[in-house]
Amino acid sequence: MKNEKITERNKDFASWYTDVVKAAHLAEYSNVKGFIIFEPNGYAIWENIQKVMDKMFKELGHQNVYLPVMIPENLLKKEGELVEGFAPEVAWVTEGGSNKLEERLAFRPTSESLFCDYYKNIVKTYKDLPKLYNQWCNVIRWEKETRPFLRSREFLWQEGHTVHATEKEAMEETNRMLDTYKRFFEEYLAIPVVVGRKTEKEKFAGAEYTLTVEAMMQNGVCLQSATSHYFGQKFAKAYDVKFVNKDNKFEYCYQTSWGSTTRMIGALIMVHGDDKGLVLPPKIAPKQVCIVPIKMTDELLEVCEELSNELKKNDIVSYIDKTDKSAGFKFAEAEVNGIPVRIEVGPRDLENNKVTLVRRDTSEKKLVNVDNVLENVQKLLNDIQDNLYNKALENTKNRTYEAKSLKDVEEIMNTNPGFVNAHWCGDLECELKMKEIKGTKSRCIVETKDYENEVCVVCGKKAKHKVVWGIQY
Amino acid sequence: MKNEKITERNKDFASWYTDVVKAAHLAEYSNVKGFIIFEPNGYAIWENIQKVMDKMFKELGHQNVYLPVMIPENLLKKEGELVEGFAPEVAWVTEGGSNKLEERLAFRPTSESLFCDYYKNIVKTYKDLPKLYNQWCNVIRWEKETRPFLRSREFLWQEGHTVHATEKEAMEETNRMLDTYKRFFEEYLAIPVVVGRKTEKEKFAGAEYTLTVEAMMQNGVCLQSATSHYFGQKFAKAYDVKFVNKDNKFEYCYQTSWGSTTRMIGALIMVHGDDKGLVLPPKIAPKQVCIVPIKMTDELLEVCEELSNELKKNDIVSYIDKTDKSAGFKFAEAEVNGIPVRIEVGPRDLENNKVTLVRRDTSEKKLVNVDNVLENVQKLLNDIQDNLYNKALENTKNRTYEAKSLKDVEEIMNTNPGFVNAHWCGDLECELKMKEIKGTKSRCIVETKDYENEVCVVCGKKAKHKVVWGIQY
Repeated sequence: MKNEKITERNKDFASWYTDVVKAAHLAEYSNVKGFIIFEPNGYAIWENIQKVMDKMFKELGHQNVYLPVMIPENLLKKEGELVEGFAPEVAWVTEGGSNKLEERLAFRPTSESLFCDYYKNIVKTYKDLPKLYNQWCNVIRWEKETRPFLRSREFLWQEGHTVHATEKEAMEETNRMLDTYKRFFEEYLAIPVVVGRKTEKEKFAGAEYTLTVEAMMQNGVCLQSATSHYFGQKFAKAYDVKFVNKDNKFEYCYQTSWGSTTRMIGALIMVHGDDKGLVLPPKIAPKQVCIVPIKMTDELLEVCEELSNELKKNDIVSYIDKTDKSAGFKFAEAEVNGIPVRIEVGPRDLENNKVTLVRRDTSEKKLVNVDNVLENVQKLLNDIQDNLYNKALENTKNRTYEAKSLKDVEEIMNTNPGFVNAHWCGDLECELKMKEIKGTKSRCIVETKDYENEVCVVCGKKAKHKVVWGIQY
Repeated sequence: MKNEKITERNKDFASWYTDVVKAAHLAEYSNVKGFIIFEPNGYAIWENIQKVMDKMFKELGHQNVYLPVMIPENLLKKEGELVEGFAPEVAWVTEGGSNKLEERLAFRPTSESLFCDYYKNIVKTYKDLPKLYNQWCNVIRWEKETRPFLRSREFLWQEGHTVHATEKEAMEETNRMLDTYKRFFEEYLAIPVVVGRKTEKEKFAGAEYTLTVEAMMQNGVCLQSATSHYFGQKFAKAYDVKFVNKDNKFEYCYQTSWGSTTRMIGALIMVHGDDKGLVLPPKIAPKQVCIVPIKMTDELLEVCEELSNELKKNDIVSYIDKTDKSAGFKFAEAEVNGIPVRIEVGPRDLENNKVTLVRRDTSEKKLVNVDNVLENVQKLLNDIQDNLYNKALENTKNRTYEAKSLKDVEEIMNTNPGFVNAHWCGDLECELKMKEIKGTKSRCIVETKDYENEVCVVCGKKAKHKVVWGIQY
C-alpha cells in the first residue's frame, strides 16, 4: 500500500528520506537548532546496534569506560593536527554556575586528548599494555547543514581508544576493528561495504592512516559508515604517553582509535527502505513480528497471545497490535515501521486453523497452519535478512563502475552515480579536480602498487593507487 | 588480609572511601576539575545497574528515547521554580564553531523543559496518553565540592518523564516508580531503604511533591538515592502541554519525572565495603567469581577452564587470573575488587579432587569436591546476597532512633548519627534550626496525621508530620 505521507523515492530521494524518518517515528526535529530527538522507534534500533556491537567488542577483549564530556582548551590543543581539524566544529562551555570559566572547555568532538591524558597516568611498563578501552557517549560537532542521523550537531557513538607496546600490534588492532565493523555491517545491518584506506586529504586529523567502511545508498550516494585509525606514536608524543619496554628503556606508545555512530540508522533507512517506509533487517529490528487480530474478539486475541508466547520462547520479539484502529491501518503502520514479518489473524482463516504471514521486503503472503507459525516465521526472518543483503549487494554491484578518464567519471556521476573505480597519481591537485564533478571524493584507496600501464584519470601521469570515488552524504 | 593502600574505616571514613575507589579501580580523578573518569571496574557496575533497571522499566511499559543535551536559555526559563533551583549549577555553551551564539545553551542539568517541549508537539488527544519515556544520559551540575560518584560536575543517570490524562494516573506512576527503585535497591543492591515524601524545602524545584529513596551508609550518614516527582499540571501550564480529553475539551496534562544516578555506585561502596576494599552483592557484581590457579601449571589451568565453563553455562560470570603475579597478590586483588567468591585451585587440594571456595563478605573458606563446585557457588552467591542485605539492615536498625527533643537529636548526631525519627510542626524555621546540628536535614516525611499528643521537637508546637532526619552526603 502506498503511504500518503511518504514522497516516492524516484521523485525526490531527500524528501523520501525525511518523510520516512518522520512517518516511522524514528526522530523528530527539536527546537534546539541542529539537534534531533531520537524517538522510541529510532532509539530502539540504536539500542540493538549497541547490544550487538558491544558484545563483539568485548569478545575481542575490550572494556568500557567513561571519560569526561569536557576537554580543557589547553589539553585539546596539544595535538596540532587534531585541533586544526576539529576547531571549526567545537562547541565551547565558557560559563559554569554563575561564573565565567578561567579556561574554555570544549564539548568533546572526539576524545583522543582525554584518553591520552588518562593513559599517560596509568601506563607505566609494557606489562600494563595493551589497554583496549571503548566508550559509548554523545559528542558535538557544530555542523552548519544538518540531516537527521546523517549529520547533526549532537550524535551518539562509540569510540574505541587503544594503546599498545608495538607498532605491529597497534596496526593489527586497526585492521581487526575494520574487519569487525565490516562483519557487523554485512551480517547484522545487511549492508555490503567496501573497505580501504583514506587518502591523506580524507584521513582523520592526527592519524598516520585511516581505514574506512564505505556503504552505498539506493540512489548511488556513498556514506562513510565507520572508521579505524592508526596513530603510530603521534599522539603519544604530543601527550607524553610513555612506557618502559622489555629492554628497560622508555618508549612512546602506539595507539589506535575507531568509531561508529548513530549515522548507521541513516544507512539502514537509505539502503533498505522503500516507498512504503522503513524496511529493517530482522537481526537488528527491535520488533521482528507484528501480530494483527483482524477483529478484536476474545477468540482471535487468544490465538494472538499464544503465537506471541511461542515466538517469545524462541527469542523472536513480537507485539500484538491491540489498538482500536482498523486492520488496514494496522497493516500500513507495521509496514511504515519496517517490521519484518506481519501475522494476520482473521476469523475466516482461523476456521481452517490458518493464519496469514506477510513479509515486509517483498509483500509476499503465505497462508500457514497455526501450528507451523514458528518454523515459518524463523525461516522468513532468515530469508528476509538474506534477501535484503542480496538486494543491497546487487544495487552496489550495478552501480560500481570502472572509469578510464575524467569524462567517464563525469558521465557516471551526472547520470547514475555510485562507486567509481579509477586510478590516481596521488596528487592532491587531481583529487581536488575530481571534487569539481558534483563533489566527487575519494572514498578509499583499495590498491597501491607499482602500476605499469595505469595512469591517473585526471592528469594522465603514472598511477600510484586504485581508488574508489563517489558522491557522499 | 589488610590492604596497605586503604585507610581503615574507623580511622577516617572519607579517606577510606576515596582509597577504595582508587584501589578497586572504580574511578580516577581526571585533569578536568570536578570530573571523574569511570574506569572499567566502575563502569561495569553501572552497565549492570542499567541492564537490570532498564528491564524493570520496560516491563512496566516505558520506552527509551534520547533528547538533545543542550537547552536554549529561553526554554529552560519557562518554569520559574525549576530555573531558580538549577541556575547556580548550570554550565553554559556560548560559542559554537568559531561563532558566538545568539542565545546561550544550557548543558542539561535535567530535561523537564525539553520533554515538555517535545510532548507539546506529539500529544494531541487522550488517545495519545500516557507517554512513558525514559532516557539514559549524562548531565552536568556545576558543583563546588565534588567526590567520586557522590557528587561530581558530570554524572550519568536515567531520567523518566511521563505524561498522563489524569491526576490519579500520574500520582500512581509516581508511586509505582518509587516502589520500583525501592525494589531495585533491596533486591539487587542489597541496600535497605526508607521511603517517603520530601518536605517543601527539600523537594525538586517545580514539583508538586517529591518521593524519595533514602539509604544509610555504614557510618550513619544518609544518601538520597533516587527520587520520583509528581508535577501535577505545573510544567504543562508553563510549557503549554494540552490534550483534548474524553469530553472533547482542552485540558493540561499531568506529569511525573523520576531519576537515579551513578551515585548508586557510591552507595554500594559505602554500604557494603570493608577495610579490605570493595564488597559487591552478587546480583550486581560484573564478575561474580575469581578463579585463581595457585601455580600456573597446565594441569591446574585446565581445571580452572573447566570450572569457568561450567559456571558460564549456568550464567555465572567468572574469570581466571592468569597473570604472573603471586597467588597471594591475586587473592588480595580479588578482595579489593569485591569479587563475591574466589576459587583457589591448588595442587595439594587437587590430589584429593578438591578446591577451596572463599566468600568475600565473611572470608569463610570451604574445601569442596571439584564436582560440586557449581552447586556450592550458586548457594554461596545467594547466601552472600542475603547476608549483605541483612548486615546493612542491621546497621540501619541499630542506627535508627526516636528523638523527643532537640537535645536528643544533638546527642545522637554528635555521637553515632543515623536516621532520627522526630515529630515536626511543618515550619521552615524549625527545619532550619535542625540544620544547625551538624547539617541535619529532613530525609523524608514518613507519616502525616492529626496528632493528639505529639509535638515538634524544635518548637514544642503541635506536630503535623513524623519525619526521618539525618546528616547527608
